[in-house]
Amino acid sequence: MSEKMRQHAHIMIKNILDENMPQPAVQRALAGHNFTGHVYILAIGKAAWAMTKAATDFLGDRLARGIVITKYGHSRGNIPGIDIYEAAHPIIDSNAIKATEKAVAMARTLGHNDELLFFISGGGSALFELPLPGITLDDLKALSSKLLASGADIVEINMLRKRLSAVKAGRFAAMAAPAKVFAIVLSDVLGDRLDSIASGPAAPDASTAVDAHKVVEKYNIQLNSTMESYLTQETPKTADNVKTVITGSVRLLCESAAKAANQLGYTPHILTTMLNCEAGHAGKFLASIAMDIQNNTSTFKAPCAIICGGETVVNVKGNGKGGRNQELALAAARGIAGLNNTLLFSLGSDGTDGPTDAAGGMVDGHTAAKLKMAGLDIDAVLANNNSYNALTVVDGLIITGPTGTNVNDVAVLLIGGDYDQY
Amino acid sequence: MSEKMRQHAHIMIKNILDENMPQPAVQRALAGHNFTGHVYILAIGKAAWAMTKAATDFLGDRLARGIVITKYGHSRGNIPGIDIYEAAHPIIDSNAIKATEKAVAMARTLGHNDELLFFISGGGSALFELPLPGITLDDLKALSSKLLASGADIVEINMLRKRLSAVKAGRFAAMAAPAKVFAIVLSDVLGDRLDSIASGPAAPDASTAVDAHKVVEKYNIQLNSTMESYLTQETPKTADNVKTVITGSVRLLCESAAKAANQLGYTPHILTTMLNCEAGHAGKFLASIAMDIQNNTSTFKAPCAIICGGETVVNVKGNGKGGRNQELALAAARGIAGLNNTLLFSLGSDGTDGPTDAAGGMVDGHTAAKLKMAGLDIDAVLANNNSYNALTVVDGLIITGPTGTNVNDVAVLLIGGDYDQY
Repeated sequence: MSEKMRQHAHIMIKNILDENMPQPAVQRALAGHNFTGHVYILAIGKAAWAMTKAATDFLGDRLARGIVITKYGHSRGNIPGIDIYEAAHPIIDSNAIKATEKAVAMARTLGHNDELLFFISGGGSALFELPLPGITLDDLKALSSKLLASGADIVEINMLRKRLSAVKAGRFAAMAAPAKVFAIVLSDVLGDRLDSIASGPAAPDASTAVDAHKVVEKYNIQLNSTMESYLTQETPKTADNVKTVITGSVRLLCESAAKAANQLGYTPHILTTMLNCEAGHAGKFLASIAMDIQNNTSTFKAPCAIICGGETVVNVKGNGKGGRNQELALAAARGIAGLNNTLLFSLGSDGTDGPTDAAGGMVDGHTAAKLKMAGLDIDAVLANNNSYNALTVVDGLIITGPTGTNVNDVAVLLIGGDYDQY
Repeated sequence: MSEKMRQHAHIMIKNILDENMPQPAVQRALAGHNFTGHVYILAIGKAAWAMTKAATDFLGDRLARGIVITKYGHSRGNIPGIDIYEAAHPIIDSNAIKATEKAVAMARTLGHNDELLFFISGGGSALFELPLPGITLDDLKALSSKLLASGADIVEINMLRKRLSAVKAGRFAAMAAPAKVFAIVLSDVLGDRLDSIASGPAAPDASTAVDAHKVVEKYNIQLNSTMESYLTQETPKTADNVKTVITGSVRLLCESAAKAANQLGYTPHILTTMLNCEAGHAGKFLASIAMDIQNNTSTFKAPCAIICGGETVVNVKGNGKGGRNQELALAAARGIAGLNNTLLFSLGSDGTDGPTDAAGGMVDGHTAAKLKMAGLDIDAVLANNNSYNALTVVDGLIITGPTGTNVNDVAVLLIGGDYDQY
């Protein structure tokens, strides 16, 4: 692999991750905030512990108390003044409900002189849930199953589910009033819609009771009378006591990549922050762009960095080992085969791409030839979803360890100048 | 559909096709050429008739004689001075060989004062073939079958096949010497490699006898002694009597799109001219870019036109009716749903996308809602490869009729200014 470009890629990866970890992200959000009164914390999601730790370090004595609700195994130890709860993800369990009850009890005690820092990160939808009176966890699960079986999509399912929740769709923030709520969000939802991230516990709900009933009719779902009456109740359409800042997102991940590329002399171009197609085809598309840049038939001129953020999907058919970022990179390897000064890496911000210990993959114009020499056929590897094992052979894995955040993925195509002959 | 943008799209489509038809393309190539001596014509491929017609109109009395070899049904009538032959495509038949013998006989009569206009277009590889002495058509077919069954790719198969041909890999141009050969190419091969288009009858061959033997060894192919000796003979590595111009290609198609977009006030960006991923995923990728442009999170600023040329693929699983351009457009429709001033069209330059009478598809931010109202689910339609029937319902088909050329496809994402509210 071209050593200079490989070094550049590793510098970029380090800078991208450094800027987007929960600690600097939370510190950026808090640094500009004017605190008044007593400060409480509620943190939900997979990054809840790390966000809270950063906040308590920043707040010192100003903290009154706080609650963390995170996924099993995601607490990294005690934090003074903070009660830490762990629960299941992605399937809700009773521990999530018990922890949410504690959070609701804390919110109800808050007054005019109190302020709640509400840290929201990926996984919050399952970890923070309290069904309305008369609704059980089993009711919620049964409803979701029925909707899924009827062909409803996730937007439609959430539209109904959050109307049966005491804390979602802006209701939690309403409970905390008259206290002010400062919602600090690490977004794992493409497009950063606040009513979608963790089902929007502190965001006005964009959907209406009429919308919800249309979904019920469309899929001909039978509801009991309790559910029926809850669906008719409107969700909050304003959240006057809430201020929200998105301090981490795939858009910021892309902007960090652009900044890092620029510092290394590559003109950055952010193509999209909402990539959502199949990983391998995204890799092929980026490889096509690389060929045109090298042929000088593209709008983009070398040296440049083509940046795509998002969350691709993998249609698992094989029994190999890999992840979406590794598949994207490996699929690009064939398209860029033989090109000098061309490197592509794809990186999951959480540091764990699929069920592997790699954060993603890195390939260049020589990767395909090396794989061939090793007796590996890229198509066969991809058909078996075995990108991890193939990239291992060509030193193409990016290993960072779990990062404690998840703001999705960034793929970067680097086209160098002619200074960097292989 | 937003009427103004729809009008813009149709103006663009007309301009793109007008500039890339065989007639203007051939006239452009001939206009700059300095003719000397007697002019002969050999035209091979699916556009052979149209290219020859344009040339004879241009040449008038300067033409000595000519031969056209095209696909069954592709001749559109007599052309004075031209012998027209039709043959099978994509599977070679004996008529192709008989016609090629005529072309070889003509080429062997040419002298210093003669010039051969050699028109090459898509399909030429099957339509123009003459096996070397001792090799039969069945030998060629058997070799291809064995290689395919062994997992060889098209590059490897062609590398062997053209060494068994009297006319491929630069050999036809060598036969025509000492006459000058002016090769005028409509390219249907991404990247426009001259040794790949129609297997390069007038281009020096990049592969060597050593490369060919590696393929034989790799797949352990048994050859008879005649084949064995032909594989050892080197193919021409120069073609001093040949001048070549690519007068039609997907790159020129993209440049026409860029010019037309610019004239209508959209800043054009050519992302790639070598798109080769799955059609639906290319559409999703372009829709992701559209969302970012509308959110102002992309490098590209509205109004703009994002242009991709190439040849996507469709993995046919259903029994519906459609084509790759229609699938690309339909797959984009969901991603751009709800966006104003956003339109995407994808167009096959041959005017026949898949086995349909449409050239491609056109969608905008309202297409998905219209399909939903019509009871059509985009995912289900795509799963059944039924894009034609769905686009029919939303007035989303582009109908041009067969154009007589094939330089692959162009997809254009148009993002308008705010002048064009729906």
